[in-house]
Amino acid sequence: MKKRIAILGSTGSIGTQTLDVIANEPERFQVDALAGGYNIALLIEQAKQFRPKIVSAATKELADELALHVPSDTKVLYGEQGLLEVAAGTEADFVVTALVGSQGLKPTLAAIEAGKNIGLANKETLVSAGHIVIDAAKRKGVSLLPVDSEHSAIFQCLNGENRSEIAQITLTASGGSFRDRTRKELEGVTVEQALRHPNWSMGAKITIDSATMVNKGLEVIEARWLFGLGYDQIGVIIHPESIIHSYVEFVDNSIIAQLGNPDMRVPIQYALTYPQRFPTPTNRLSLVDAGKLHFREMDFGRYPCVRMAYESGRAGGSSPTVFNAANEIAVARFLQGAISFLQIEDIIDSVLQQHQTVSEPDLQTIHEIDAWARKAAEAISFE
Amino acid sequence: MKKRIAILGSTGSIGTQTLDVIANEPERFQVDALAGGYNIALLIEQAKQFRPKIVSAATKELADELALHVPSDTKVLYGEQGLLEVAAGTEADFVVTALVGSQGLKPTLAAIEAGKNIGLANKETLVSAGHIVIDAAKRKGVSLLPVDSEHSAIFQCLNGENRSEIAQITLTASGGSFRDRTRKELEGVTVEQALRHPNWSMGAKITIDSATMVNKGLEVIEARWLFGLGYDQIGVIIHPESIIHSYVEFVDNSIIAQLGNPDMRVPIQYALTYPQRFPTPTNRLSLVDAGKLHFREMDFGRYPCVRMAYESGRAGGSSPTVFNAANEIAVARFLQGAISFLQIEDIIDSVLQQHQTVSEPDLQTIHEIDAWARKAAEAISFE
Repeated sequence: MKKRIAILGSTGSIGTQTLDVIANEPERFQVDALAGGYNIALLIEQAKQFRPKIVSAATKELADELALHVPSDTKVLYGEQGLLEVAAGTEADFVVTALVGSQGLKPTLAAIEAGKNIGLANKETLVSAGHIVIDAAKRKGVSLLPVDSEHSAIFQCLNGENRSEIAQITLTASGGSFRDRTRKELEGVTVEQALRHPNWSMGAKITIDSATMVNKGLEVIEARWLFGLGYDQIGVIIHPESIIHSYVEFVDNSIIAQLGNPDMRVPIQYALTYPQRFPTPTNRLSLVDAGKLHFREMDFGRYPCVRMAYESGRAGGSSPTVFNAANEIAVARFLQGAISFLQIEDIIDSVLQQHQTVSEPDLQTIHEIDAWARKAAEAISFE
Repeated sequence: MKKRIAILGSTGSIGTQTLDVIANEPERFQVDALAGGYNIALLIEQAKQFRPKIVSAATKELADELALHVPSDTKVLYGEQGLLEVAAGTEADFVVTALVGSQGLKPTLAAIEAGKNIGLANKETLVSAGHIVIDAAKRKGVSLLPVDSEHSAIFQCLNGENRSEIAQITLTASGGSFRDRTRKELEGVTVEQALRHPNWSMGAKITIDSATMVNKGLEVIEARWLFGLGYDQIGVIIHPESIIHSYVEFVDNSIIAQLGNPDMRVPIQYALTYPQRFPTPTNRLSLVDAGKLHFREMDFGRYPCVRMAYESGRAGGSSPTVFNAANEIAVARFLQGAISFLQIEDIIDSVLQQHQTVSEPDLQTIHEIDAWARKAAEAISFE
């Protein structure tokens, strides 16, 4: 029987690569629902190719255009209601949550409440409301399968292992587009320069997050929730080649690592086919061709966003929500050309300073604090 | 309840490190039997410390000396009969086979027939008679747990994985003591130079086997039997740091690798405690301190013994028996100063050339062919 898939964020980088994996194995998968963004031409093409029962666009205007081009039995929706229907309103077994930012939280929770297993590519969901999402998944007995390459790596390394025997996990960081620059040299960098990631092909927001290393900070917090570890058990090192995707050290000092070329289709497919593995449309890794792998210490002075991520993670409660929300606004302002690259850090730092952590916030509190942090991040001006 | 252990080869490198692991966890293990070699002072010390029920020495003379020093309720034996009693004559659950060379075959088979699980450090056993050993283990339902660091790495990488999804395994080779020399520069090397392994602390025979790369060839054949793979699925690369101990590539192009400092106590303990892991008396690996890892292609011209190992493995039947027996004699002759380093290869090559492969040899045939190959290897003279 085919696995029935819904994708939240089908026109983004993870969404299109998920459909690439699905198209490669048409006997194995069926697409039940797609929610896309503003690239309506691509969403139309996807709807024609994969024939989902529900397609959702970002706005009413885009949905109206979409309706003109998709088969007449396709249900066309838009906005938040559309996301919720795609997440929970079909008979899909498996929902890939590939939205960008904390907008993914509500539909992810809706999918979990509907009893669907989750392929989690939207790390901001766990960062914003980790305790609520994990509790819901446990209560409903659904699996949260990581799609992020680092978390998929850790997940794969834990196959057949006893989680109580983990000493530490280490997430590797490429260093992003500016890894060879000093902080001084970051002052005048442009949006275009920041968008050139050396290893991975990804969306704009995550590429900026890689350059600031906020992305690694979000991953640390995501890992805390996915694997139930303390922050002292989660390390980060710089590994420019992105070939060792992450690794687990066990109590006996044995390390298990997952390696591969930087190609998201491997972790995406693994989440879709777990616990089985099938061929992927990717290139094999040759360590001989790679020749050398390099490792260096994470420098918290060079990358203060990682320090802030650990601090907000350790503070717990609503602090990671604020860290994430402030960053989302700061990145948007940088992409609009309104602030400089280093001011992203200043905004996150300033909003975190203004916040008093609330322990065990409920969902309503999280939404309020998220909204407050966004406003606070918008309000910061640099003269 | 304590795990009851017997060790074949307790005074060798693997044997002493096994006892180091056991001494570190006295609540977990009990030593039921020890078979040592010619270092009688060490064997006496081990017998006093671990109080096994049976101790066996290499010769009658050594056994007589041993008997004077061990507790009076200790049974003292010697020679092949001693090895067989240590292997099969106690209530031990687990037998570590750490003898050097194909002398390990008979006692290993005796332990298997007695229903004991095996910690296999004696790779020559599987090389000489792989089909017989594997069949016996299957028939008796006992586990063969690898102790070699490379095979333990592969075994750990396969935890929780489906063996039918393996694309390839790759064994890493440090390159041994002469890895930075050309073949020309190997002509005058001394025994002392050959015995200086850059990464691992091991016995003389295996250190020479590392320098000739026969060791990697034996490991390829061992891996074929342990993991049930074809030779096309077993690769070898040079990795001078010996930090990635080996790795498995799956059909989805995902690679799982096992890493650690080069310290045999980790794989030894893993075999003893599998499927559990406990702290080991070893140092943690820091990839940051390592800084760089290097990889290069296995050069079959520089290391013809690896090519010969693959060829004899692919020829199958009695060929690996001959490869191993000829090498054992050649190494002994080199260690005695009777031949030069490169003549080890010449001897193996020449004896293999003289041999007509026998398919599916029985144990008697293997013993005869092994004896023939040893004589042939002794008989080769260099004018």
